[in-house]
Amino acid sequence: MTSAIDYAHSNFDRFQSELVDLLKIPSVSTDPAYKDDMYRAANWLADHMRGIKLENVEVMETGGHPLVYADWLHAGDDAPTVLIYGHYDVQPAVMEDGWSHNPFDPQIRDGKIFARGATDDKGQVMLQLKAAESLLATDSCPVNLKYLIEGEEESGSENLERFIREHQDLLAADVCVISDTGITALEEPSLVYGLRGSLAMELVVSGPRQDLHSGLGGILHNPVQALTEIVSKLHDETGKVTVPGFYDNVADVSDEERAMLNKLVYSEDQWTYIMGDLPEYGEAGYTIIERMGIRPTLEINGIAGGYAGTGFKTVIGASAIAKISCRLVPNQDPARIKSLIQSYIDDITPDTVRSEINFLDGTYPVVTDMNHPAVQAVIRAYSKRWQGKDVLLTRIGGSIPVVANFQTILDIPVVLPGFALPDANMHGPDENFYLEMYHRGIDTIITLMQELAG
Amino acid sequence: MTSAIDYAHSNFDRFQSELVDLLKIPSVSTDPAYKDDMYRAANWLADHMRGIKLENVEVMETGGHPLVYADWLHAGDDAPTVLIYGHYDVQPAVMEDGWSHNPFDPQIRDGKIFARGATDDKGQVMLQLKAAESLLATDSCPVNLKYLIEGEEESGSENLERFIREHQDLLAADVCVISDTGITALEEPSLVYGLRGSLAMELVVSGPRQDLHSGLGGILHNPVQALTEIVSKLHDETGKVTVPGFYDNVADVSDEERAMLNKLVYSEDQWTYIMGDLPEYGEAGYTIIERMGIRPTLEINGIAGGYAGTGFKTVIGASAIAKISCRLVPNQDPARIKSLIQSYIDDITPDTVRSEINFLDGTYPVVTDMNHPAVQAVIRAYSKRWQGKDVLLTRIGGSIPVVANFQTILDIPVVLPGFALPDANMHGPDENFYLEMYHRGIDTIITLMQELAG
Repeated sequence: MTSAIDYAHSNFDRFQSELVDLLKIPSVSTDPAYKDDMYRAANWLADHMRGIKLENVEVMETGGHPLVYADWLHAGDDAPTVLIYGHYDVQPAVMEDGWSHNPFDPQIRDGKIFARGATDDKGQVMLQLKAAESLLATDSCPVNLKYLIEGEEESGSENLERFIREHQDLLAADVCVISDTGITALEEPSLVYGLRGSLAMELVVSGPRQDLHSGLGGILHNPVQALTEIVSKLHDETGKVTVPGFYDNVADVSDEERAMLNKLVYSEDQWTYIMGDLPEYGEAGYTIIERMGIRPTLEINGIAGGYAGTGFKTVIGASAIAKISCRLVPNQDPARIKSLIQSYIDDITPDTVRSEINFLDGTYPVVTDMNHPAVQAVIRAYSKRWQGKDVLLTRIGGSIPVVANFQTILDIPVVLPGFALPDANMHGPDENFYLEMYHRGIDTIITLMQELAG
Repeated sequence: MTSAIDYAHSNFDRFQSELVDLLKIPSVSTDPAYKDDMYRAANWLADHMRGIKLENVEVMETGGHPLVYADWLHAGDDAPTVLIYGHYDVQPAVMEDGWSHNPFDPQIRDGKIFARGATDDKGQVMLQLKAAESLLATDSCPVNLKYLIEGEEESGSENLERFIREHQDLLAADVCVISDTGITALEEPSLVYGLRGSLAMELVVSGPRQDLHSGLGGILHNPVQALTEIVSKLHDETGKVTVPGFYDNVADVSDEERAMLNKLVYSEDQWTYIMGDLPEYGEAGYTIIERMGIRPTLEINGIAGGYAGTGFKTVIGASAIAKISCRLVPNQDPARIKSLIQSYIDDITPDTVRSEINFLDGTYPVVTDMNHPAVQAVIRAYSKRWQGKDVLLTRIGGSIPVVANFQTILDIPVVLPGFALPDANMHGPDENFYLEMYHRGIDTIITLMQELAG
């Protein structure tokens, strides 16, 4: 009889063209203009799941964008139940951001598939489904499967926490598996056991009732200028966040764990590729790996005010906005950070302008116990599919809002077998996914399910 | 025989609807998308000029947007020749800026006409032409007339200086009259004798080769953050410009002139209308009137970087831009200010990012001798049309790039009889022009031509 791995290998060309089909749908969750495409993507996934023998497939309303549920529960009462989470929504992407081609017209070159969502997260959702198809088609699935594929990850998973709370029986499982992270390099398997939390906000500074002719310059505090003055006070010269109390609850990380984390080196080549000849920047006393993994940040994700378009408009803008987000680490509480930032911004806003902060989603940081059997199963799965290589354990800079929810509400461990590579350009132009990683990811997930069955 | 003034009064309704027609053409010079509309506006004006008996009417190429020339030279050799300058191009305007209606669909309410360009400068170009029509139709024009109506004032009059240099014979005149400024209040005539110069620039700060996922936050100097740090260092807490040497050549203004200027008071009501309950801001030791008229400024006209659109994108932008312009006063030289700014920005740019400045147009400040006969003629014309009221003399914050060119290249005095009111919202949403000012402006220019003839 054919093994699941053999099945996967002989069907890989089809698996690849199915991923291309999903990548063509511009399921941008943060922009209301794409609402219909969100349903198109959810329905595409639901149809696809029915086609690979998953059961109880349903596109479920959440109040925002729909999510897709499916399961297969015939592995027997003794077999563990695995809840697989992923997301079909993607970050915005337009040619003007620097794409080489339409981000929703996938192109294959140099062994990679280029498209928005190729890695984050459609490619990794599809490798989960293709692993399931391979196990089910060969009657060899050793675990019960449940799938929850949401459509709001890139816009803060606003409705997911409530959905999980209201569907705890439906989602009950022994372990949660998420493929939405990466490994260090093509031949260096690694497993993420820590994610930073996040807290996003919009800071608006305003002054005059409307935009003014800049001939009035000199008599009022220009809100764009005032915004730069406020934002510039959020970091010191080394990049350390200056919000009082920001670092108060940051958990110490043992020298042993720091040493382990630093086995992974951010290479000079990687730095030069991204930054050219610019020197390093960041909080003193920490390596790049530590700055990303175990230290919190506050980043300005966007700024706008006045007229910055084509040509020149001699205007004083009535208001200006900065979009800001923090990455949080254990044991920072988003609610406390929120109030610290609010107080500090209030303090440093001069009385010649008004400031207002609109806080968006906050998510807790998560660190999973490295010794948990599920973590060990992932390590074995990687190792088997990477010719016995050692698997590095890492903590990364990104956030996956839902991870904390699965741990706290469903009370199950979450493991993160991810297949992104560092040059995947997630959230940037020319996002891509190595076909070899898609291939190896499917094999690894098949093996992981076997390892989880014990 | 009908007087020019009577003619103007009996034709005012038609004068009004002709202005509406011109305001419907979206002649936005700074945005290439409106190129065709620029020609439509120029041709509309040329046709109109032919219709009111002006001669040698020509739409002339400049290398950029065309300008319109016309003349009438039959007042006799002893009569002075008056060169009238204006501009048919307008600032950008879209509903999203806060307009109550389409800015190119003029609407009349509360005695005002609302549209982009209503005051700046189409309304004031038309009142010049309607004064000429009234004088010519009644065979009573006492001066020779030349018109130069350009299409690039709002984008820096890039090609005008060369055009003037190359057409000195065509443009030769005894005095230049420009209606592109305003008066203090409907019943308070005033005359601008000083304009600030300007210097515009784009400051770009860049770092990584492309936008990055903000999970990388903490390891590189975010260009948006760095831009705020640089821009925030351009002013001290009182609003004084911190560029070393910026104030070095600023001409002292005598106590007598300051006292005269301060006869005009920026009222608390005006401030409250624009700024609500926000307190004053600006260089210490100067009144609001002085800060606008006799002191230089550096304003941030626009800023953009990262993602600041709908929703949230957790990105670190590869670069960020600030659009900046200075208003200059005698005896600041734009070229010197440019090099001071370049050096200072170079000095304060941290080595963890790159910065680059692209300087645009620079124009010299202008102050006209208050005792010149042409200035006195304008004062008499205002006074006659404002029931004998005193005429205040003022220096304003705005710039008209061409004024310095007329003075230096053609070697003629420039007078600025303007009819904008302070709430005209030039460059802002709901720009408007009082019909009463349009009316009185036509009468005043008719009278001015008579006064200039002596």
